[in-house]
Amino acid sequence: MSGKITSATRIMGIDPGTAAVGFGVVDKLDGDSFRYVNSGIIQTPKHLDAPKRLAMIRQDMNVLLEDFKPDTVAVEAIFFFKNAKTLVQVAQARGVILEVCAASGYATAEYTPMQVKMCLTGFGRAEKSFVQNTVAALLNLNQIIKPDDASDALAIAVCHARMSVTALASKGC
Amino acid sequence: MSGKITSATRIMGIDPGTAAVGFGVVDKLDGDSFRYVNSGIIQTPKHLDAPKRLAMIRQDMNVLLEDFKPDTVAVEAIFFFKNAKTLVQVAQARGVILEVCAASGYATAEYTPMQVKMCLTGFGRAEKSFVQNTVAALLNLNQIIKPDDASDALAIAVCHARMSVTALASKGC
Repeated sequence: MSGKITSATRIMGIDPGTAAVGFGVVDKLDGDSFRYVNSGIIQTPKHLDAPKRLAMIRQDMNVLLEDFKPDTVAVEAIFFFKNAKTLVQVAQARGVILEVCAASGYATAEYTPMQVKMCLTGFGRAEKSFVQNTVAALLNLNQIIKPDDASDALAIAVCHARMSVTALASKGC
Repeated sequence: MSGKITSATRIMGIDPGTAAVGFGVVDKLDGDSFRYVNSGIIQTPKHLDAPKRLAMIRQDMNVLLEDFKPDTVAVEAIFFFKNAKTLVQVAQARGVILEVCAASGYATAEYTPMQVKMCLTGFGRAEKSFVQNTVAALLNLNQIIKPDDASDALAIAVCHARMSVTALASKGC
């Protein structure tokens, strides 16, 4: 975690996945208020091999970083997967995401799914639909964001905004 | 696996790890003979955070690819780790390695540690020291290569050379 949270700090949340990488961009305003900026997913063709798909993810991440210029990129930590193969695939994508952030000079932070749920709803095992509704409410949106990966990425961004404020507050900032 | 094996096909083996990424470059000559070209490790400072270390791995991989221009890069597959955290770290490095190969137009192949041992020694659970001695013998070196990660990377490169020939032979090439 890094950076001073002032009005309109921009945070990009990233949810690395195998089928799609979710992204969500949020501006942190004063107090506990946020502005929705953009969200979506990076998808790569299934018929391509892993190295080519990873290269496409890096290219698209570069475009997103240049377009939105976030102050911090908050990336979901890999916590647990039943399937070791899926774990490896997601971690490979996550490696590329962290690398391109560092190579372009963007600060990164990471949160587990449980931290994100706890931060947004007060309950680390909250239902997915409840988290999605909370994200929409916090961002003053009339409906939940689709697809799920994009909503998850926005949740990570909001989590970082709140956690950073908490961290600064605990330091007396 | 791809490419036609002719004399002096160049293969770069990569052994992704947390402390170091091993590399080994081998020229495949006619028959079952090989020429040692170079080997070593990419090391990144432990005090740096993961994104910066991944960015350094990508930079160094780029230099190696430009210096040695391999026909194929053979990367060790992630097979099994007792520790999930280690698994994620290695997979993140592996993702960056596969990505930079694809982004630079290099073909990649992958082999599990068991495939490599089987290919070099005929026994998938051969002792590490025996594999290292076999690598040295196949490359006409007077002593085993150090550090271990570099020797492992050379083993992966030799494995790819042999496996490719086998694949071509089975197709009647």
